Formats: sequence, structure tokens, C-alpha cells
Amino acid sequence: MKKISDYASEAELALRQLAISEKEPASLYSPIVYALTSGGKRLRPGLVMMVAESYGGASALEACQKAAAGIEMFHNFTLLHDDVMDKSEKRRGHDSVWYKWNANTAILSGDTMLTLATKLVTEVPDDKLRRVIDTFNDMALEVYEGQQLDLDFETSETINSDTYIEMIRKKTGALLGAAAGIGAILGNASDKEIGLMTTFGEMLGIAFQIQDDWLDTYGDSATFGKPIGGDILNDKKTFLLVKALEADKGTVDALKVTMKELKGEAKIKAVTRIYDKLNLSEETKKSVAFYTKLALKALKATSLSEEAKEPFRLLVEKLTGRKK
Amino acid sequence: MKKISDYASEAELALRQLAISEKEPASLYSPIVYALTSGGKRLRPGLVMMVAESYGGASALEACQKAAAGIEMFHNFTLLHDDVMDKSEKRRGHDSVWYKWNANTAILSGDTMLTLATKLVTEVPDDKLRRVIDTFNDMALEVYEGQQLDLDFETSETINSDTYIEMIRKKTGALLGAAAGIGAILGNASDKEIGLMTTFGEMLGIAFQIQDDWLDTYGDSATFGKPIGGDILNDKKTFLLVKALEADKGTVDALKVTMKELKGEAKIKAVTRIYDKLNLSEETKKSVAFYTKLALKALKATSLSEEAKEPFRLLVEKLTGRKK
Repeated sequence: MKKISDYASEAELALRQLAISEKEPASLYSPIVYALTSGGKRLRPGLVMMVAESYGGASALEACQKAAAGIEMFHNFTLLHDDVMDKSEKRRGHDSVWYKWNANTAILSGDTMLTLATKLVTEVPDDKLRRVIDTFNDMALEVYEGQQLDLDFETSETINSDTYIEMIRKKTGALLGAAAGIGAILGNASDKEIGLMTTFGEMLGIAFQIQDDWLDTYGDSATFGKPIGGDILNDKKTFLLVKALEADKGTVDALKVTMKELKGEAKIKAVTRIYDKLNLSEETKKSVAFYTKLALKALKATSLSEEAKEPFRLLVEKLTGRKK
Repeated sequence: MKKISDYASEAELALRQLAISEKEPASLYSPIVYALTSGGKRLRPGLVMMVAESYGGASALEACQKAAAGIEMFHNFTLLHDDVMDKSEKRRGHDSVWYKWNANTAILSGDTMLTLATKLVTEVPDDKLRRVIDTFNDMALEVYEGQQLDLDFETSETINSDTYIEMIRKKTGALLGAAAGIGAILGNASDKEIGLMTTFGEMLGIAFQIQDDWLDTYGDSATFGKPIGGDILNDKKTFLLVKALEADKGTVDALKVTMKELKGEAKIKAVTRIYDKLNLSEETKKSVAFYTKLALKALKATSLSEEAKEPFRLLVEKLTGRKK
């Protein structure tokens, strides 16, 4: 059985074959090569491929190679611009593009990546072109809207866990949804199956993001790949913080004072203690389970055989750390 | 006879009908509305429409409305990002988006405009979709490459007038070329006519940009719409400066000292005096005339009637200030 990791390797290959390093001017294209060769799990293009082959076999897998690469290119474009906006100096353990070069380079090479992504996504059979490009463009708008909501939330007092979920649905869910949806389109799936696969990807994206929030506080730094507590130190509005801000006034006031006055490890410990009191680890895990279940429900409703569903179940497990 | 100004008014209308102000979140879309309603001559979408109707009549004019709006949206996207990169505080007499809001807003709302532009450009008949989207994407890459060359030139000693022309061909010519080309595609023109119209737009764009460089030094501030000498004050690599840097060593050394040591009006006057000595006003006008002639030559070679060619000749005159 082919697994997501097999498709991710295939996606890596498709990306290498784009030959961007040969394009001029090098000052525009070498940051793109740098960004595309600085790691990344290639889950999104892998998902395009896995869905396409599950529905349409080898010819669909062949037909989706460029579009899959385009999905990963788009993802990396958003990282270049997000890192400028968030002033993040590191990305996947390397210097981010704006930090290594400068903001102008990250902006303009990022713009170039968006157009390269759009070009790649148009490299599909004529009878699929309109549907694929529409799915891609509509997804892109959702991702920007999600990023804008995320930026707005940092200075807003009016978030609640519902608006937070809507934000991550757009910022993270939409791209995984479009990846699965485009895979299904290119696999000649029916409208119903395309819809179910889009839901699968979208709900998986939400579950994954909430899980990522949980890991930042309750994870193991070795497997998480980042130091624990980074979000707490940066006052990042995570699912846990948003939930905590919905607690009683006494707790919220104490939390705000703690966030404002403490620094470093002391801050991480104190905030975590408040999360513990509110039982937020359990509540967050429940929320991950909820969206995981919605993803699995959509998967179950598809016409794929049990055997064909299995790699998708394994993907869910991999991204959310939980079995069905 | 309909003129470019008539089509520009029609383009203005098409832009107003996009109803972007109703979209959420407002923090993402209101800077877009601001940018799109802060002036602009709408020459590019007007050109799409003028070419489309010239070849394909009323139905082609109808079919190109959204694509024309997309071309103007793309143009405004580049202005948002260019103003961040160049730190330009003003745009068309108003505060630029990054200056009014902040750089993050200009980046993300700009990204959104690029995708909105791409979406608009896909709103064409199915049988034209691939050709239009390919023309658009390839143009976009040329524009980024031109902008990158422009940024590189600011810190480079190795520009000459040939590389300068290549830069403005990409940065300014490509978009006018694609506007005319997409108009021709949507007007059901033949491949040959599409090619000629693309050349017409591209050469017109080059002539226009060189003329703009000339106006910055030798123009009349009332008709130019900007103070004279702005490029000189900013050490902007214009056609005149690049040409001057190709002069004998003595002149180049004197020019560099002048640029470094003088400020304000004194700098403008002294640099202009060097340009005068090198007879650069005449040489620049000759270059404008050269590219104008190439544009008119392409126009002449088209199958359009003399009557249909007339508004294009008037457009050339308007943009380059010279008759045939």
C-alpha cells in the first residue's frame, strides 16, 4: 500500500524538476530555490497525488504532478510573506528569506512564487482547467482572509473560540481542502466525491492546527521540532489562549497580568498552570478529536474501497496523533 | 469614433461593479477599495477594451469586461508592493497604502489583489481561457523580473542603456503588451494579429517609460503632475542617467561627485546641466521616437482598417507626446 510518505517523496521529485534555478535574474529566483529546498514535509502536494491516484489511477497521478507542485509552491509563497509580516527569523530551522536577504526580496520573490504556483496549477487537462483554477483562486482568497483575521486577532479583544476556528479553517484548512479537492477533480471523481474530499482536507487542517496549538504547550520538544512554549512567550492567540480568555473574569485578569509581567520559563510555567486549572489540555484534545471525526466521517462517506481509505486514515493519525 | 478615454471610462465602470467593498474582513478589502478609487488613468484596461472591440465588435467588448478589470487590478497590485519596496509615501497624490496603513497591509492586500486579478482574467469564454491565463501569467513573471532588475540596478555599476531598455520592456512594456494581446485574443483575432498587437503595446510601453524619464527632467510640472527633478534627487536610474554614465570618464566622475555632494534644486540644476552638455534631451527624444515608430509599425501591419487604427494612433500620441 502506498502511503502519504511515498506521495510526499514523489512530490519532492516533481518540485526538483521545475528547474527554477536556471531562471534569470538569479536575484529573483535563487531565494525561491532556497525556500523550496529548505525542507518541508510535502504533505499538501502528497495529498493531491494520493487523492488523484485513489480515484483515477496511474493516469490521474501523472496528470496531477504539476498541480501538486503548484500547491506546494503556493504554500511556500505564503510562508515567505507570513514570515515578513510576523518578523519570523527562522523557518524550518533555517534563516527565513527576508532575514537572509531582506523584506523586498521576500515580497517580490514571494509574488513570483504565487504566479509560478498559478501557472503550475493551470498545467492540467483542458476539460479540468476551469474547475481547478477556480478551486485554487478561491482557496487563495480564503488563505489571505485567514491570515488577515490572524493579524487582526493579535490586537483584538473580541475573539472567541468560534471566530478562532473560522480563522484556522481559512488559514490552514482551505489549503488542505483544495489540495484534496484538486486531487479528486484530476482523478475524475464525481461532484459529490470532490465535495467530500474537500471537507476531509479542510477538517483535517483544522484538527491539525488545534493539535499544533496543543503541542506548543503540552508537547515534547523532541518530536514537536520546536521549543515548547513559544506561542506563550509570543502571546500568540492559540486555541488554548482563546479558550482561557473565555473563562471567568478573575481567571482572565490573572492570566493577563501573568502574560504581561512574567518572562521566559516563568511565564511559560505560570500560563500553563492557568491552562491546567481550566483543564484546557483535555478540552483542546476533545476539539482535535471533534474535527478529526468530521474528517473521518467525510472519508467514510466517499465511494473509495476500505483498502483505498486506509492511507487517508493513516494520514489523519499522523497529523493529529490519534486513531479514529 | 470611440477614443481611449471612452474605453477608460468604461473600464472605470467595470471596476466599480466588482463590489469589493462588501467583502470581509474589511481590514483586508478596504485598502483594495482605497487603492482602486484613488485615481489612475485606466489606460491598460481601456486598451484591452479598445483592441477587443476593434477586432470583435460589441460582443468582444462585452466578453472582455472582467479581464480588462483584472489587468487594472494587477497593475494596482504591483503599485501596492512597489511602494513598499521603494518606500514611496505618495501614489497619485494620495498616501500610499503602506504609508496610510502599514507594510503588512500593503503586502497582504496586494497578494489578495493579485489573486482577484487572476480570478477576473479567468472570467472569459472557455475556448479562450487557456490562452488568456497563460498570457497573463507570463506577463506577470516579466513584470516581477523587470522590478527585480530595477531594484538590482539601483546598487549596480554595470547597467547600460541596453539592459535598461530590457528592464523597462519587462516592467512597463509587458503589461501594455499583454493588455493589447488579451484584447486581441478576446476579439477573436488571428495569431498574427495577436502578435502584432502585443508588440504594439510593448513598444508603446517602452516609449512611454522613456518619455516619462525625459519629462522628469525636461517636462513641465503642471502637465507632468509631479515636481520636476524627483528622479535626479533620488538618484533614480533613468534612461538619461544611464546614458550619462556611458559618457567619457571625466564627465562620469564629475556627474558622480555632483550627485553625491549637492542637494535639492542645486543638484537638479547641476545634473541637468551635465545632461544638457551631453545633448541627452535630444538623444532621449530620439529613443522615444524609435520605440514609438516600432509601435506604429506593428499597428500599421495589422489588418485593421485605417479608421480603426486611428484611436490607436491617438493613444500613441497621448502617451508619447509625439505625432507619428
